[in-house]
Amino acid sequence: MIPRYSRPDMVANWSPETKFRIWFEIEAHAGDAMAELGTIPKENADAVWQAKDVPFDIARIDEIERVTKHDVIAFLTHLSEIVGGDAARFVHQGMTSSDVLDTCFNVQLTRAADILIADMDALLAALKTRAFEHKETIRIGRSHGIHAEPTTMGLTFARFYAEMARNRDRLDTARAEIATGALSGAVGTFANIDPRVEEHVCKQLGLKPEPISTQVIPRDRHAAFFAALGVVASSIENLATEIRHMQRTEVLEAEEFFSQGQKGSSAMPHKRNPVLTENLTGLARLVRMAVIPAMENVALWHERDISHSSVERNIGPDATITLDFALARLTQVVEKLVVYPEHMLENLHKFRGLVHSQRVLLALTQKGVSREDAYRLVQRNAMKVWEQGADFMEELKADPEVTAALSGPEIEEKFDLGYHTKHVDTIFARVFGDS
Amino acid sequence: MIPRYSRPDMVANWSPETKFRIWFEIEAHAGDAMAELGTIPKENADAVWQAKDVPFDIARIDEIERVTKHDVIAFLTHLSEIVGGDAARFVHQGMTSSDVLDTCFNVQLTRAADILIADMDALLAALKTRAFEHKETIRIGRSHGIHAEPTTMGLTFARFYAEMARNRDRLDTARAEIATGALSGAVGTFANIDPRVEEHVCKQLGLKPEPISTQVIPRDRHAAFFAALGVVASSIENLATEIRHMQRTEVLEAEEFFSQGQKGSSAMPHKRNPVLTENLTGLARLVRMAVIPAMENVALWHERDISHSSVERNIGPDATITLDFALARLTQVVEKLVVYPEHMLENLHKFRGLVHSQRVLLALTQKGVSREDAYRLVQRNAMKVWEQGADFMEELKADPEVTAALSGPEIEEKFDLGYHTKHVDTIFARVFGDS
Amino acid sequence: MIPRYSRPDMVANWSPETKFRIWFEIEAHAGDAMAELGTIPKENADAVWQAKDVPFDIARIDEIERVTKHDVIAFLTHLSEIVGGDAARFVHQGMTSSDVLDTCFNVQLTRAADILIADMDALLAALKTRAFEHKETIRIGRSHGIHAEPTTMGLTFARFYAEMARNRDRLDTARAEIATGALSGAVGTFANIDPRVEEHVCKQLGLKPEPISTQVIPRDRHAAFFAALGVVASSIENLATEIRHMQRTEVLEAEEFFSQGQKGSSAMPHKRNPVLTENLTGLARLVRMAVIPAMENVALWHERDISHSSVERNIGPDATITLDFALARLTQVVEKLVVYPEHMLENLHKFRGLVHSQRVLLALTQKGVSREDAYRLVQRNAMKVWEQGADFMEELKADPEVTAALSGPEIEEKFDLGYHTKHVDTIFARVFGDS
Amino acid sequence: MIPRYSRPDMVANWSPETKFRIWFEIEAHAGDAMAELGTIPKENADAVWQAKDVPFDIARIDEIERVTKHDVIAFLTHLSEIVGGDAARFVHQGMTSSDVLDTCFNVQLTRAADILIADMDALLAALKTRAFEHKETIRIGRSHGIHAEPTTMGLTFARFYAEMARNRDRLDTARAEIATGALSGAVGTFANIDPRVEEHVCKQLGLKPEPISTQVIPRDRHAAFFAALGVVASSIENLATEIRHMQRTEVLEAEEFFSQGQKGSSAMPHKRNPVLTENLTGLARLVRMAVIPAMENVALWHERDISHSSVERNIGPDATITLDFALARLTQVVEKLVVYPEHMLENLHKFRGLVHSQRVLLALTQKGVSREDAYRLVQRNAMKVWEQGADFMEELKADPEVTAALSGPEIEEKFDLGYHTKHVDTIFARVFGDS
Repeated sequence: MIPRYSRPDMVANWSPETKFRIWFEIEAHAGDAMAELGTIPKENADAVWQAKDVPFDIARIDEIERVTKHDVIAFLTHLSEIVGGDAARFVHQGMTSSDVLDTCFNVQLTRAADILIADMDALLAALKTRAFEHKETIRIGRSHGIHAEPTTMGLTFARFYAEMARNRDRLDTARAEIATGALSGAVGTFANIDPRVEEHVCKQLGLKPEPISTQVIPRDRHAAFFAALGVVASSIENLATEIRHMQRTEVLEAEEFFSQGQKGSSAMPHKRNPVLTENLTGLARLVRMAVIPAMENVALWHERDISHSSVERNIGPDATITLDFALARLTQVVEKLVVYPEHMLENLHKFRGLVHSQRVLLALTQKGVSREDAYRLVQRNAMKVWEQGADFMEELKADPEVTAALSGPEIEEKFDLGYHTKHVDTIFARVFGDS
Repeated sequence: MIPRYSRPDMVANWSPETKFRIWFEIEAHAGDAMAELGTIPKENADAVWQAKDVPFDIARIDEIERVTKHDVIAFLTHLSEIVGGDAARFVHQGMTSSDVLDTCFNVQLTRAADILIADMDALLAALKTRAFEHKETIRIGRSHGIHAEPTTMGLTFARFYAEMARNRDRLDTARAEIATGALSGAVGTFANIDPRVEEHVCKQLGLKPEPISTQVIPRDRHAAFFAALGVVASSIENLATEIRHMQRTEVLEAEEFFSQGQKGSSAMPHKRNPVLTENLTGLARLVRMAVIPAMENVALWHERDISHSSVERNIGPDATITLDFALARLTQVVEKLVVYPEHMLENLHKFRGLVHSQRVLLALTQKGVSREDAYRLVQRNAMKVWEQGADFMEELKADPEVTAALSGPEIEEKFDLGYHTKHVDTIFARVFGDS
Repeated sequence: MIPRYSRPDMVANWSPETKFRIWFEIEAHAGDAMAELGTIPKENADAVWQAKDVPFDIARIDEIERVTKHDVIAFLTHLSEIVGGDAARFVHQGMTSSDVLDTCFNVQLTRAADILIADMDALLAALKTRAFEHKETIRIGRSHGIHAEPTTMGLTFARFYAEMARNRDRLDTARAEIATGALSGAVGTFANIDPRVEEHVCKQLGLKPEPISTQVIPRDRHAAFFAALGVVASSIENLATEIRHMQRTEVLEAEEFFSQGQKGSSAMPHKRNPVLTENLTGLARLVRMAVIPAMENVALWHERDISHSSVERNIGPDATITLDFALARLTQVVEKLVVYPEHMLENLHKFRGLVHSQRVLLALTQKGVSREDAYRLVQRNAMKVWEQGADFMEELKADPEVTAALSGPEIEEKFDLGYHTKHVDTIFARVFGDS
Repeated sequence: MIPRYSRPDMVANWSPETKFRIWFEIEAHAGDAMAELGTIPKENADAVWQAKDVPFDIARIDEIERVTKHDVIAFLTHLSEIVGGDAARFVHQGMTSSDVLDTCFNVQLTRAADILIADMDALLAALKTRAFEHKETIRIGRSHGIHAEPTTMGLTFARFYAEMARNRDRLDTARAEIATGALSGAVGTFANIDPRVEEHVCKQLGLKPEPISTQVIPRDRHAAFFAALGVVASSIENLATEIRHMQRTEVLEAEEFFSQGQKGSSAMPHKRNPVLTENLTGLARLVRMAVIPAMENVALWHERDISHSSVERNIGPDATITLDFALARLTQVVEKLVVYPEHMLENLHKFRGLVHSQRVLLALTQKGVSREDAYRLVQRNAMKVWEQGADFMEELKADPEVTAALSGPEIEEKFDLGYHTKHVDTIFARVFGDS
């Protein structure tokens, strides 16, 4: 985790405080369930809740861990310091460390998913607003980086909206993948703990009981979770790349917002760098790099080995913190993106009408000109535009062979940009519904 | 694609024949829709269907492509050779090559998903059968490769069943991700083709229209698809690793099936290698390697660049063919796995009862023995077992300090394997339902 | 491997014919060494060489393999069919299949490296030629896609030359990494084969004996090999990306060569797509995807498991064939790249001199103008250029506050492009030597 | 970076203090060179060195950065606070931020490489010691996890020594890859800075001047660097996997060292988990995950974009800190590994001599018994061992058909373990030299 690429809520989700609080809740709820089942005395179960609003002393827990070399034992020792050793003597009974650790990890991932989903909603809102704002803002569509046919900036925003809406669904699915808990003992047989304890704890924590676990929750769930983050990150790179292209000097159809105070922007007005979207491109790589290790984590030996743990200590916080930051940064970029419709038109007209050559070609053939002749006619006029800087429409109108097939107004009609935007409403209705 | 790791149906799905047949269907259905809309004459649309049952001449298409250097044009030329140039003259009208190529690719991926889902169902059936067969077959559960507590072979199968059932859901989701088509023109504006054509073609091909496309269908869909395959592959590695461990000489709790004729098995009966599951481990890596390139494919420039294409020409067939083969091979391995319950018991008893030391420890403390004393008692008897090869239960029964707290029958009860299997039914009900 | 992205020499390197020929050489040379050591009769060793120029019958070998289910045995059987069973009866004595398979794989990888190194030399030659050709061709340097300071097209070629020269070194190192062979027996102890046999065979095949092997050659070598290919591929992507940027409509500083016959180029002269470099971008992803599986292959169990094999059957041919094709394609692109120096100058002057604003700023401060004042002066003139389309030099010359510090010739000097190219010779000497 | 998996020296290498100290050295040495060239006054160059032993105030620099939003400017401002604004007024003249940042990053990577190389030397020393210690310690070699032929524990250590020695070479190469610096200006033309300044600074910092840079040092160097770390990490996984296998309950040929105080080890003496090597397996995945992003960083746009930066802020420290920790941990594991030669012999004899069946088979054929008969003889005796627990040698000696071909001593000779270790010296000489 790089502090400069992090936001407080997600960082807090991975703090020791949060972790120990979740551990506490798992232990306390488990105690309730055991008391209900008659396994431990109710007063002992109740006593644990005294620690509910007592802040844990992280330094103290660390101190104990340095002696015991076991994090869960260190926490339990500290807990008994708070509620009294006698009251706490049934805490954790029949449980294994993994019951606490794994369930806690999934609580944290689930909450991380909630934050990411909220981030995504904000991004979707920004994209929708900009899409409607620029629904009719004409720009040239490009394939291979080369001018193809006109489209609109609204369609650009709309397609990223649709892509991010799919990503929202993927985050929902990813959240469901890891919203499970397990308190099933050393090898998952519930030998020392009743399955109903697991059910109660999971319910209280908003999780589903893992139907079958070993010592740990199966890691295919986590692989699927991080894979989903990797897809989201790739979409961020996609949108970031679009903006980087739009901002490059020769294109200049949009710019990331520059605050007034930002150094150097007015003495070198041409030198406004798309550093936010470049940064997002890098952050996407960082999120994506969690995918393969998460998949390599799936094949644990027998009922568990601990190779996954160090990986998850890293990618759990890092991938979610980075993605949270990236989504929020991207939302800002979209909200404040400075769009230059006039530059879009300039670019579109860069080759003085050549972009319409294919429509003219089609029109000629539809008027009965043979394919070969039509091609020859378009070509000779196109070449004047390309090599001599002429205007395509004027050349066509001045070419008798062309005008023999197409009248002036017919030629002009082929240069009508409305031809390309006639289905924008249809597409918007598909993407945003009829609202 | 490596022929030895492939099966005919999936290979056929990626053959030129299949591809051209799908192209034909796209063109023919598009013609129907255009005729319905009055864009082209109905007789021309109808005429194209003459090619419905005519085999395409792949060599001829290749020959034309060598001249035109364009695969779709080569196909269309060949199509017009079949139905007649005049009849075919409206074929592909207003369409771009990508309308055909991208929609076809998604048809192939969707059909590939169908095969994989059927594969998974077969694997699930095999796992379920073996799970019930070995529901009560006791084996030692292991964490860190070290004996922990008893479990059953049925639970092992059941947990892989549950994991693969999740993978089936992921394949369903992956299928839905890519079951879309697009006939939206050069930059996705439908400038030259009515959106209703796309709707008709997609319906006929079992796809949903892509709500908003550019020249291509957005690649986040494909990234999600291949990521799902990567998770499935990782689960295959997981199960393969379990079997490889079970078969290793010192463990020998199971073996891959050996056909009678297989060389060398009886002169060196100890030398039966788990080559199928080792192979599956490698195949998992092959499938997984498609994930990152598929994610790198998402960020295409503007309305499309063609960098994704070469990647997909490889990973489309390769990842699906390999995964299909791997799932089928794994199903065979599971179905025919030779399980050795007696070796499982031998292994479990390897340290003559030490595996129950924790239960004894707990029992002593529950009888009022202090934690320190209980630990000391267990330790001194455990050490006799560990160092001198004694029997743990016998030692405990002969230790007066132990018997002061626990009677003989109470000690014996702690060695009861039934303690560990008492919730197997509960877990099976969770995994398989109450059927 | 995708046929359209392959070249015959590299494909031949991975053909069954090549493989069996190498197997033959290993067996025949091993026989010589054994005869020399007196382990087998010399006449038997000699007899094997009768097969030296006899083409192997692949179909026959496959037929035998279908029965024996063992590729090496199938080959040896076929070999004995050629040289006679009696003459061949000492072939392979004391050897294991892996001695043949692993040594052969490394011969193939070594030869693949030779091809790739030759490819790289051709690319280097092309880059050098173009670098000197455009040594003084001025273009604008860009950071963040935004105009920064002038540079030359020759420097662009030169930096890719330097990068590819490093890649050549990496290929050399990679070649050395895998140019080893092993004939050391079932677990690497030479129990049944004298180490001198390994030494002789390796020498004959141009390999070094692996100092210590198990049943197999250690896979860290192969991981390093494929990692090197991944770096080379990434450099290919780097150069491809540069060209794609140069060709995009708004930049148009260079174009991939278009053959006259290529369809559509003249009726839509603006629509020349950089499809080769886009393709190279995708091919780079394909090569790179071999890296992680090759690294996952390193941790084999004990003296070997066979999980690496299926991976290598794929990435061995695929990564080298793809990289060979990519290097050759890139060389062609570089050789034939159409460079537009006039467009480079147009782009450089797009903002009428603003690109020199920083030099002016510096000159003012050097003349004693305070930083704040200098900034204000540059800013107010820059803004006229930016917002009103004025010419920066003219504005400066007309600004009395500026001219109070800088004379007209002094201002003009700041717009001198020679300022930026004065060290080009120095850099070329560093890159290409003083030749 | 996860604090628990880090060591102080490598962490210090990535601290703000270290970074600013390197920045200072770059600036101060550059000043010297400029003074030497007469570009700036010598007294100003000298004055900067006053800060040589003054600790920088990180908090103050951060404070300034919050205002200027530029890290290098913040540092330079703080520097001028120390040496006086007037004295410092020529600092950084003609330089760009990247000159400082990129050169500093490579200094840090170079120093990181030095630490890693020292780590590797320590690991090599440990492996060598253990190799000679167990040179003759017999254990069974395994292919596919199945007993194959005898080998020695010394050979196991020796092969990891050889592998790590290769990794040491790779680290050397990797160090050379990134030991370059660049002070070449905004686009690498040295427009505002003399190339001799770069040469002087690099020399002082122990770097080579980058022959040709843009705004940044080319990223193929960094890709190669992190790829090398990925290979090293994979070898760590390889050795860790071997140890994990050796420690598993049924094998128990070695154990990670357990300190006396470590909880639970004596009451459950069978439950000593190889947690260090499992952890190393996970750490290997973490190091390896840097490889692909580092390769994705190579293709920067034109003379640089900043997408690589966020990636490197993470993987620079994380991959090197994790690898440093992993190498040190592995060295400890190797040094203290508890080896159980007696268990090795037990395992080797698990199937009462069957491991020698192939030698017997060979001996019979060498005595003239037909292959079929020899196979049948070995098989029928092997089956008694396998199924009835008989002793293979005894059975052979009691089989008249066998003894007709092989005498008792001849049979016994086939069970001689010395047969398998006769070339250990040769191999050791290859690996360790004749020392």
